[in-house]
Amino acid sequence: MNVINDEALTAVRSLEDCRALDANDPLRGLREQFELPEGVIYLDGNSLGVMPRATPERLQVVTREEWGQGLIRSWNAAGWFELPARVGDKIARLIGAGAGEVVATDSTSINLFKVLSAALEMQREDAPARRVIVSERDNFPTDLYIAQGLIRERGYELCLIDDPAELPQALDAEAAVLMLTHVNYRTGAMHDMAAVTRAAHAVGVKVVWDLAHSAGAVPVDLVGAAADFAIGCGYKYLNGGPGAPAFVWAHPRHVDRFRQPLSGWWGHASPFEFTPDYRPAAGISRYLCGTQSVLGLAALDCGVDTLLAAEPLGGVAALRAKSLALTGLFARLVDERCAGHGLAVVSPRESALRGSQVCLSHAEGAYAMVQALIARGVIGDFRAGDSARPDILRFGFAPAYLGFADVWNAVEHLLQVLEKGEWRRPEFNGRNAVT
Amino acid sequence: MNVINDEALTAVRSLEDCRALDANDPLRGLREQFELPEGVIYLDGNSLGVMPRATPERLQVVTREEWGQGLIRSWNAAGWFELPARVGDKIARLIGAGAGEVVATDSTSINLFKVLSAALEMQREDAPARRVIVSERDNFPTDLYIAQGLIRERGYELCLIDDPAELPQALDAEAAVLMLTHVNYRTGAMHDMAAVTRAAHAVGVKVVWDLAHSAGAVPVDLVGAAADFAIGCGYKYLNGGPGAPAFVWAHPRHVDRFRQPLSGWWGHASPFEFTPDYRPAAGISRYLCGTQSVLGLAALDCGVDTLLAAEPLGGVAALRAKSLALTGLFARLVDERCAGHGLAVVSPRESALRGSQVCLSHAEGAYAMVQALIARGVIGDFRAGDSARPDILRFGFAPAYLGFADVWNAVEHLLQVLEKGEWRRPEFNGRNAVT
Repeated sequence: MNVINDEALTAVRSLEDCRALDANDPLRGLREQFELPEGVIYLDGNSLGVMPRATPERLQVVTREEWGQGLIRSWNAAGWFELPARVGDKIARLIGAGAGEVVATDSTSINLFKVLSAALEMQREDAPARRVIVSERDNFPTDLYIAQGLIRERGYELCLIDDPAELPQALDAEAAVLMLTHVNYRTGAMHDMAAVTRAAHAVGVKVVWDLAHSAGAVPVDLVGAAADFAIGCGYKYLNGGPGAPAFVWAHPRHVDRFRQPLSGWWGHASPFEFTPDYRPAAGISRYLCGTQSVLGLAALDCGVDTLLAAEPLGGVAALRAKSLALTGLFARLVDERCAGHGLAVVSPRESALRGSQVCLSHAEGAYAMVQALIARGVIGDFRAGDSARPDILRFGFAPAYLGFADVWNAVEHLLQVLEKGEWRRPEFNGRNAVT
Repeated sequence: MNVINDEALTAVRSLEDCRALDANDPLRGLREQFELPEGVIYLDGNSLGVMPRATPERLQVVTREEWGQGLIRSWNAAGWFELPARVGDKIARLIGAGAGEVVATDSTSINLFKVLSAALEMQREDAPARRVIVSERDNFPTDLYIAQGLIRERGYELCLIDDPAELPQALDAEAAVLMLTHVNYRTGAMHDMAAVTRAAHAVGVKVVWDLAHSAGAVPVDLVGAAADFAIGCGYKYLNGGPGAPAFVWAHPRHVDRFRQPLSGWWGHASPFEFTPDYRPAAGISRYLCGTQSVLGLAALDCGVDTLLAAEPLGGVAALRAKSLALTGLFARLVDERCAGHGLAVVSPRESALRGSQVCLSHAEGAYAMVQALIARGVIGDFRAGDSARPDILRFGFAPAYLGFADVWNAVEHLLQVLEKGEWRRPEFNGRNAVT
């Protein structure tokens, strides 16, 4: 289902044109599921998704009824035990995985520790000479930190490439595991999951994908790509709330083969037998560890539902088409309307290479411009550069709750910030805050 | 402050006597902080604490205002980033730790993995020949499972003793770490933390304490006992809600020496510099890993507050005095009123050896009796035995919300179940449910 009129999109020259696109957007109704504050254009859903209207009410039920009245009985009666698998099954529908292949649990970092150590352990059997984890220097840092914590204990090496073009060279006879984030958190650049996985497998390397900036925003086909393991985040495009549980997936061909270093009782085959010896549960459930956050899982359930609501409207493909239309329009309008102010679009222009965000660079004003925009109610975020990378203004476009008029208005605010020199005001230049 | 009239306690012969004790109980007002369902006597607070009245409202604020309106800005503006340390500081006051020594985070099992690997790593430097983790076979199984997951990777051994009397022998020249749960989850038997820690240290063994059944219920003095590491649970006596975040402590003498195998970005010295190399934060903050559950931490905060409310009334010492009075009375009334039905009190009679629970054994009817009691609104739980241990009926006594009349009524219900033979009814004998 093509939800976007390409001709009308290309012809956009005004706020009215954008409003017309919104009026004809078949996904427009999804927006009603969310609580969007007055006067805010929220372009930071890739950092913390907005709140579904259903969430506060759901938490009232979970607390006042299930916990308050049901107490311990609700582990069974209210289905609390099933939440990691039940929410996992819903997430599976967004990432090309099957039922029973995903659990929602713990944090992204902790889940990465689980799958990375499982992948290394499998390679220890399959190819013991392979002792290197390959990743990108520009990967989200916590992924690198987790790899560092793991190799520190186990004597592996971490090889970081600076450009995806170096991948073929890095995937050598010593490479054990390739660990990549599908969509880069800074630039929004997206890997071709199937092609990269194929190339890695061809030379005997297992692949772990971090879907933090993918799940709920871009099409993912884990089983189709024959990936080995994947993890992802619940509080970005899945709208699960601050610090929501993350998720973890293993390809069914690995089922019951991979292990769990964090072998807690929730991953035990019979947790309520209270036997002293660990015996892993069948399938992905063995990736559970301790008792799971019921509040967090209930809120994540509401968040995932907002994306599943797109299924009758074309699902992830329709969300993706709209997302590309939003990000493409934003980049074009920045080019056209903000020219001459030193901004450059850093994210890939080509649709197939772009996630659901657009990043802009500016030599001196990126931080202050983000602050000035926030003061105007346009919320994006700033990511500092270094010797190899520019400072960036980062704008995420969640297709479930953003529209084309939001894009127009965001660019209009940016233009004002630039033309009026607002970003040079001292109050926007103290780089202390973190967002 | 002695909150209990010992003479009146010893003289209890009726429900009225118990009501009189309640009327004179200076901690009685604490009960008003909780939502206690009608018709329920809740003796399972050692499995899932009851809900504070403040929690649902707090979650409304966190969702509708902080998340819904504040969005990403609330990480700073609403203090979300500070929650693990802020709640940790409150928990510290209940366990004899100082401010800045505790963080609330992740699950008990995951925190155990962190501290156990830290303790082993310290021993690798201090005493590399020591390659054994000592624990009890009757420890809570997830603690053993986590140790098994860790030694599987690192080539240590796990030595399980069957009786605390075997400890001196087990703490030999090969022992690296002693890992104990302070109050046994099945029997309620409590270790002398200071004495055991002293004995372990005297022979060069580091000590990790699991406070799951201690924090909020019995006095704990971690710094006074000079323990090395401790972890504990947020959803039992701390009333943090189902799957609440757990907590982790390291003795200040180890500060900045211990490491974090789960080295995620929240434990980084400068998480928002996004540098590719992990550099641990100062102090206990390095025990954070990924992004923390704000919903879970906010609810835990409300739970911990219900115990801090006892501080002007004598604090943990007063809670402990009342807890001992409740458990002592329960054991005595079971002895006196339920004699001849095959029940035996399994928990220690001596106050110093008893946590905040009383366990009863019955050769054939433990499971069915628990079910029959639940049907009457008296909620305890069942723990299956094995060749070495009897089946038990487990009753936890949270002094913050239980009273002496509850004890009387619970025993009265138990007596009815026994005298009327209710536990022999078929509907109470299907051992499928888990609670």
